[in-house]
Amino acid sequence: MMLQTITWTGQAVRLLDQTRLPMETAYLEIINERQMSDAIKRLAVRGAPAIGVAAAFGLYLGVREHRGSELLGFYARLNQVADYLAESRPTAVNLFWALDRIRRVARSAGRDTCNASPHDAIDLIKHRLLAECLSMVEEDNRVCRAIGEHGVQLLAAIRNSPIEILTHCNAGGLATVQYGTALAPIYLGAEQGMKFHVWSDETRPLLQGSRITAFELRENSIPVTVICDSMAASVMAQRKVHAVIVGTDRVAANGDVANKIGTLSVAIVARHFGIPFYVAAPSSSIDLSMATGEEIPIEQRSGEEISRGFGRQTAPDGVDIYNPAFDVTPAELVSAIITEKGVCRPPYAQSLGRGDSRATTR
Amino acid sequence: MMLQTITWTGQAVRLLDQTRLPMETAYLEIINERQMSDAIKRLAVRGAPAIGVAAAFGLYLGVREHRGSELLGFYARLNQVADYLAESRPTAVNLFWALDRIRRVARSAGRDTCNASPHDAIDLIKHRLLAECLSMVEEDNRVCRAIGEHGVQLLAAIRNSPIEILTHCNAGGLATVQYGTALAPIYLGAEQGMKFHVWSDETRPLLQGSRITAFELRENSIPVTVICDSMAASVMAQRKVHAVIVGTDRVAANGDVANKIGTLSVAIVARHFGIPFYVAAPSSSIDLSMATGEEIPIEQRSGEEISRGFGRQTAPDGVDIYNPAFDVTPAELVSAIITEKGVCRPPYAQSLGRGDSRATTR
Repeated sequence: MMLQTITWTGQAVRLLDQTRLPMETAYLEIINERQMSDAIKRLAVRGAPAIGVAAAFGLYLGVREHRGSELLGFYARLNQVADYLAESRPTAVNLFWALDRIRRVARSAGRDTCNASPHDAIDLIKHRLLAECLSMVEEDNRVCRAIGEHGVQLLAAIRNSPIEILTHCNAGGLATVQYGTALAPIYLGAEQGMKFHVWSDETRPLLQGSRITAFELRENSIPVTVICDSMAASVMAQRKVHAVIVGTDRVAANGDVANKIGTLSVAIVARHFGIPFYVAAPSSSIDLSMATGEEIPIEQRSGEEISRGFGRQTAPDGVDIYNPAFDVTPAELVSAIITEKGVCRPPYAQSLGRGDSRATTR
Repeated sequence: MMLQTITWTGQAVRLLDQTRLPMETAYLEIINERQMSDAIKRLAVRGAPAIGVAAAFGLYLGVREHRGSELLGFYARLNQVADYLAESRPTAVNLFWALDRIRRVARSAGRDTCNASPHDAIDLIKHRLLAECLSMVEEDNRVCRAIGEHGVQLLAAIRNSPIEILTHCNAGGLATVQYGTALAPIYLGAEQGMKFHVWSDETRPLLQGSRITAFELRENSIPVTVICDSMAASVMAQRKVHAVIVGTDRVAANGDVANKIGTLSVAIVARHFGIPFYVAAPSSSIDLSMATGEEIPIEQRSGEEISRGFGRQTAPDGVDIYNPAFDVTPAELVSAIITEKGVCRPPYAQSLGRGDSRATTR
């Protein structure tokens, strides 16, 4: 990948400002939790796995300047920053998963340092938190690569060349630290000599498909055609799509999948035309605490993203606008869920629920 | 209706420039066929019924200055202008229907004036052509009103209040001379005291839904909520839509329906959720010469409508863009086709094919 979504400079978190793609590749240097929350809220960093890593760094940044010498005060501050960051966006479970992971590491590190002075203990905990953030970066790369490997096996069953993939939103390298989830099988397959052509839904309202997916595919020399979201059905009706692959912000225990608004429509249309619909996700996106997708909180965003999104007013004043950022695709429309552990098939209540490491692999 | 799509000033055709809605209500004064063709091509006037009337006027404008005194020369000019206007847009059959109608009137008027001098005959024919254009305006109003009346009967079976309608693109008053096709049942029902709420798909790439449908519904005090095209499935999944009504640019003999890109997706999703999908159209949109929708020519438009549509570049340079203006919804997904003659039900090969006046009315 040519662009780095998230890097640690030694002093700050360097984020590619994805709101400015494709015309500008500008970076933000994030030095505290408020800047990180703001970057997450306005989608400068987006994509469930990337949000998770960003939130973890945000939590570290929020405590690294903490000057108190009492462990209790340090943990109070840690919880306060975690609660603050948890408010940034509601749907991607990776955000909460990452914050919990950092908090767990802090508690465990606290126990390990019980013989040190409180001042030294706090310093040690801070180091451990940064180390954990950096290992999450490494882990994200490994996980995405493993997703790619399992996905390539799935796609290898398609005998066409090029293999025509339709994707919605961006679950590529720019949604993760580096490799991507939904696009990882394409990048890995291309490395192995497979030929692909990708239909990229532009993904209204914020156009992550045309701005970001098309951009990163072009940078990686994968042929891509941008379409409006409303054109996916026409392309599928013309038998020009062999498989759909998307990412997800949260998978419920029964296999219901929350993802960028418009995913449900793609899934229904794919089913209508008998096209497999795959979801790629790290197992950190699976939330076994939610029985079904109905429980997943769906973020509502400002109507101005629709009516004034691109520098020009496109809806009259005084009309109502509805702008949910996500929808839920029921498990019955999902052909398989590809994680780093393997390929989960229906019934998902078993394949996801009995533990990811035993997910059915074919 | 507060705004007039097409009016005859006595010297020129006054067109509301729909490319400038909703921020400006500007009018064009069209005085020749080139200006009319340009207005049709760039969608200053759009909507199948309105395109038909506009093309008829365009043909009249193209011959009214003809100075020759030979009938043969006049007809040659008439055919030349008709062929020129026929190139403006390919999908809406009303364009060709209207041009043919004007040519037929010209031939018939020529026969009626066989005792006059060629010079007088040409003058008389010109008058008859203008009269025909004006009667097409009247007829469009009558037809739309009749569509509205049949549509209201269909919607009256829905027991909810408000009745929640989803529509795609604009088949309202601004797609016709005045009343609309898909929106006519809503306007007439509202006059009769029925309550409605409309979900208006914004309709990428040219946003006729957010710019035009939302605008005219607001002007007519019908509650409307704008959504991105990709959100229709989410709204339907929440059981917030009782019926879909759309217009059409051409109906094939078997009931396949060409309409604005994205309609197919709406129809598939509506079927998935068991929501009726209605098409409203004047019988002039029915093209019995085409056996199925596969024969309907689909206009391809510039990719820049997608990548630079909002005043800001939204896709990177160097990527392919696919921009079909229409798609075809197969008859099997269409619950009924509402014309001015009545409500046609499947099998459409019978209800449309045995003559519109005997279309099955329920």
